Amino acid sequence: MEWERVREKIIEQVYPEQKELRDARSVYEKISAFIEGEYGLETHFAGSTGRGTCMSGDKDIDLFVLFPRDTERKTIEQQGLTVGKKAFENFDGEYQVEYAEHPYTKGQINGHEVEIVPCYKVSPENIKSAVDRTPHHSKWASENLNQRQKKDAVILKKFLDSGGLYGSSLKVQAFSGYLCEILIAHFGGFKELAEEAENWRENEVIDPENHHGGGLPQALKEKFSDESFVVIDPVDPERNVASVMSAQNYSRVIHRFWQFNRDPSMKFFQEEEREISQFEVKQEIDRRADFLVMEFERPEAVEDVIYPQMRKTLRRLENVLEEKQFRIFETGFHVGEEKTRILLELEASLPEVRKQKGPKVFHGVEHLEQFTEKYENTFIEDERIWAKIDRDYTEAKAFLNDFLSGEVEELEKKGIPDHVAKKIVEFRFTEAVPDDEEWLKYLAEKLKVKENE
Amino acid sequence: MEWERVREKIIEQVYPEQKELRDARSVYEKISAFIEGEYGLETHFAGSTGRGTCMSGDKDIDLFVLFPRDTERKTIEQQGLTVGKKAFENFDGEYQVEYAEHPYTKGQINGHEVEIVPCYKVSPENIKSAVDRTPHHSKWASENLNQRQKKDAVILKKFLDSGGLYGSSLKVQAFSGYLCEILIAHFGGFKELAEEAENWRENEVIDPENHHGGGLPQALKEKFSDESFVVIDPVDPERNVASVMSAQNYSRVIHRFWQFNRDPSMKFFQEEEREISQFEVKQEIDRRADFLVMEFERPEAVEDVIYPQMRKTLRRLENVLEEKQFRIFETGFHVGEEKTRILLELEASLPEVRKQKGPKVFHGVEHLEQFTEKYENTFIEDERIWAKIDRDYTEAKAFLNDFLSGEVEELEKKGIPDHVAKKIVEFRFTEAVPDDEEWLKYLAEKLKVKENE
Repeated sequence: MEWERVREKIIEQVYPEQKELRDARSVYEKISAFIEGEYGLETHFAGSTGRGTCMSGDKDIDLFVLFPRDTERKTIEQQGLTVGKKAFENFDGEYQVEYAEHPYTKGQINGHEVEIVPCYKVSPENIKSAVDRTPHHSKWASENLNQRQKKDAVILKKFLDSGGLYGSSLKVQAFSGYLCEILIAHFGGFKELAEEAENWRENEVIDPENHHGGGLPQALKEKFSDESFVVIDPVDPERNVASVMSAQNYSRVIHRFWQFNRDPSMKFFQEEEREISQFEVKQEIDRRADFLVMEFERPEAVEDVIYPQMRKTLRRLENVLEEKQFRIFETGFHVGEEKTRILLELEASLPEVRKQKGPKVFHGVEHLEQFTEKYENTFIEDERIWAKIDRDYTEAKAFLNDFLSGEVEELEKKGIPDHVAKKIVEFRFTEAVPDDEEWLKYLAEKLKVKENE
Repeated sequence: MEWERVREKIIEQVYPEQKELRDARSVYEKISAFIEGEYGLETHFAGSTGRGTCMSGDKDIDLFVLFPRDTERKTIEQQGLTVGKKAFENFDGEYQVEYAEHPYTKGQINGHEVEIVPCYKVSPENIKSAVDRTPHHSKWASENLNQRQKKDAVILKKFLDSGGLYGSSLKVQAFSGYLCEILIAHFGGFKELAEEAENWRENEVIDPENHHGGGLPQALKEKFSDESFVVIDPVDPERNVASVMSAQNYSRVIHRFWQFNRDPSMKFFQEEEREISQFEVKQEIDRRADFLVMEFERPEAVEDVIYPQMRKTLRRLENVLEEKQFRIFETGFHVGEEKTRILLELEASLPEVRKQKGPKVFHGVEHLEQFTEKYENTFIEDERIWAKIDRDYTEAKAFLNDFLSGEVEELEKKGIPDHVAKKIVEFRFTEAVPDDEEWLKYLAEKLKVKENE
């Protein structure tokens, strides 16, 4: 009852009006008619706009051109491009060529963002690449969602998006639109899903088409062993639709559903706008350990490359700092439009003296010999020999300066991925709270700064 | 050859002259004759003086009075004391009464420190308490050591003593005199022992009388499972003569033998006298983390009680400090004549903010509920819920002041043993390097300060 009212309000705000959906379909149909007429090729209206599971204002039209199975790859690439170009030209659309599995065209027609993507018309078992699977996903979702469920799918997308959990890019690592639709179809609706989801466990398996009646076969268990959440693709029994989702995001989703169930209100469908001042962030920083902020140019690559590389870079820096015994409290990074920054909250200074652990004494004299040849001031503590030595680095700053100096190739050898290496090699330390709105928001979120009341 | 010369030199310095041993024996024989004559009781000349394995200057005479097996406990206690008192009176000796298994007398006769100890004359299998075993130990050692080996036993004692490893009290936790003698008898001599000992492993078992031909029975393996070094008592197959030895001291002994083997010289038989100035210790402290030194009165108990209690106290303080996330680099304690001090080298300050770990999100909503009821500013990181909270204590000093305040009984409940609790309750923080020679030596040793060259 209460939820129904909230639901209506959300739909009002985020679900497209019928006219909007009709407009999009009419544009699709015109292009489709042109392609069928000119080239005798079937098309498919993929994407959420095609099946009425998009948010209002979403003007994307994904048009897939289906080539017969025996078309040669070269032909599909050439003709795929030609078809796209001619279609854009025919409708006076501006376009450009993009590259995925095959090259394709992308541009504007009548105010819609249109993609014309060539793929093979094959059954799911015979797909040659991921792009051939898309029409099947699209078809499955259309056939398995009624009107109310389509709206619930959009509600779910909004619910996730407000929590930073909508998207299956390597930046976001959370829910794809297709995954949202599968879950709504499987559980029946948003509310039903929410009630189930708070109880999801580690390695939860959802198999909507019941491909694996008696539980996953061993081979799939192994394949999915690193994935916290497994949703078997209705059109491909060996694929986990949720494979890109990180364990952290899976946990966040469960947590968010649990919060929602305790208070099913509008707030879960609105962006949380924190208004945190520079002063408040500075106050927060004073209450914490030392801060080091490293700043460098944004790496030149797409987000699906930058984000995994930045995560790897951060892990690497954490590891080498911890090897040097610097105590780390918090880390993070932010890729802004221009600047990329790495945040390290840590004990930035260590005593000059440290103890170097040696072998256990009763593990044999050869180890004692090696150790005492290497170190001078040795002694026994517990069951080991130790050496008292001077630390290489007492300051984390000095260590990072040295670790990240040298040629880009050296950095790569030290475990910094290439695109990041090219930029981080010229990093500089900067004040923790510079005058940068985006970064300030990031810090406030990262450091859990609460708005002053 | 070289070693033989060194050996002769050590013997010259530490082995008693024949006259010294003869004098002691003659005193023993006079007392023994008196006791046999007056009471018809057999005696035994126990202790290292009795068997010529003492160091020169050692004036101890341990005289055991052997009572028949069927003597009642009450009788042995009364008559044991009477015999002792009369003997001291007869030889014009001053004495006092001490308490071990039975009360006994202890005093001076002709410049010798004499103990007259009553025990049962029983075979090793029938002993009623540890004191009855001593004459058997003594007898075994006498029968199994030739003249040269007796000297080697003394060399071994000196070797260990110079490294702080001679003594089986709960303070020292290392080698008893009897253990030294067993090892010399078993390996044949000091040099032979040294060569073997550097290769001793964890859970080494030495069984000189080969009581357990096929290896230790399971029950004994379990009994000795916490003991790094097992030497089966020649007169009691179920007893480990080395049971009091700590793993650290076992490691130190192996290490010391290994050092000796590489350079068999006099330096291992001399006390190492460090001449470290207050200034040098202060310099060392500047190169390290924060120092807290807690000072209180020496606990009122014997060393065998104080030392285990101090070790337990230190472990307890380490544990509670680490629970509070203070990072500890070094700890120690020193029981001086008057003052007892605890040393803590640590990061004495922590940031105000900390993260409180909560349950994994997918372990069930009931855990989420409990956690969020308790904490306000919660968030998800990795697979867990966490809370951002203020630390109870940012200063280790303030924490220790609170932890050790209150009544003695409260301290005992917090895990501080009674005798220490009575004194530590009035502790105060003191400067790390006060004007105290003994403490300075302790610090120099603990912090491995090298003498300036």
